[in-house]
Amino acid sequence: MDTGARAFITRADTVSITDKRLLKGARARETALRRAVDIASLDGLDDVSFGRLATDTGMSKAGIQTLFRSKEVLQLATIDYAREMFIDAVVRPAREAAPGVDRLRALIEHWIEYARTPVFEGGCFIVANIARFDSKPGTIRDALVRSHREWLDTIGKELRNAVGSHEAAELDIDLAVFQIDSVLRAANTALRLGDEDVITKVRRTVENLLEAA
Amino acid sequence: MDTGARAFITRADTVSITDKRLLKGARARETALRRAVDIASLDGLDDVSFGRLATDTGMSKAGIQTLFRSKEVLQLATIDYAREMFIDAVVRPAREAAPGVDRLRALIEHWIEYARTPVFEGGCFIVANIARFDSKPGTIRDALVRSHREWLDTIGKELRNAVGSHEAAELDIDLAVFQIDSVLRAANTALRLGDEDVITKVRRTVENLLEAA
Repeated sequence: MDTGARAFITRADTVSITDKRLLKGARARETALRRAVDIASLDGLDDVSFGRLATDTGMSKAGIQTLFRSKEVLQLATIDYAREMFIDAVVRPAREAAPGVDRLRALIEHWIEYARTPVFEGGCFIVANIARFDSKPGTIRDALVRSHREWLDTIGKELRNAVGSHEAAELDIDLAVFQIDSVLRAANTALRLGDEDVITKVRRTVENLLEAA
Repeated sequence: MDTGARAFITRADTVSITDKRLLKGARARETALRRAVDIASLDGLDDVSFGRLATDTGMSKAGIQTLFRSKEVLQLATIDYAREMFIDAVVRPAREAAPGVDRLRALIEHWIEYARTPVFEGGCFIVANIARFDSKPGTIRDALVRSHREWLDTIGKELRNAVGSHEAAELDIDLAVFQIDSVLRAANTALRLGDEDVITKVRRTVENLLEAA
């Protein structure tokens, strides 16, 4: 039948076709996830579904289903994608600053920019979803908590660097991490409500912590 | 027709029937709203609908619709009801303590109990919903912000009392209110995730603020 035709496809062609398919798949994935993080930051991860994504992006529902198989896989991929975007926007640029107080301040400033711009339509992805899933045990909550934990560890590491090099006063790292994370999360909501004064409050909270005896 | 029968209903009967109807209406309202606040704290105010309430309570959908007319009215009534429950659980019992530091500590302790027990199935009603509605302007967001503002004012008043009577160090009231509210909101999420250590962190944050120079 078409065996003859197939015989004409060389190995090079096969590679090229596979590459193109992979590229097309990667692009489709990118389009779907870029929209998924906005839906999740605005309406919550529960609203990230094949149907909603198809409506919002114009992609076919079956195509999205082929890419992600189940709603849970899609939701977990969305969390992963949001995590990468957060790292690109906040964590990576702060690495240019020296470890310790400088990098901590850089993390805070990049975070403020990230919450203000905002990278996600509905503001911080984690803040928007952790309050939604905190009473719902399962893989989604676990993934959100893991991403959040990573951010807490990033702050904690720079606080430890700051105290270790005597740039900052001796302080209870766990307590300070909790306080910084708390004010950032509250600031995310305040920024959504148009309260720009909150930025000064965040900066003062961090500086007071660093100066405290 | 039934005019004759109606003539036998005395004024006293009418009053009694009206009373019974009002009582029945009030009870139905209570049942619906008691369930509505739990749904809203767990799944968000968007899930508070006539259909969901009918399914959850066994009441008729038409009956609930008669009581609240529109979904928005129902959602606003739910916020009001949650506000009353919060006042009963946190604000009112704290009034037994003397104004200033004592009452502030009482507010914090009652709040911890409220978030821990919890009064609402999904934890603090405001925390659960303000992160959901912060990017959605409208009457629901306005009502949530108003309730939240009332709570901030309650904390602010006791901080001012504490500073005014020299029980606490001179401090920036607005900043301190923001910090206390931030840690309480973060604590609500942490408690949902089973982290009881957060209670000590909240207490230490408040005590550090009161002691700060």
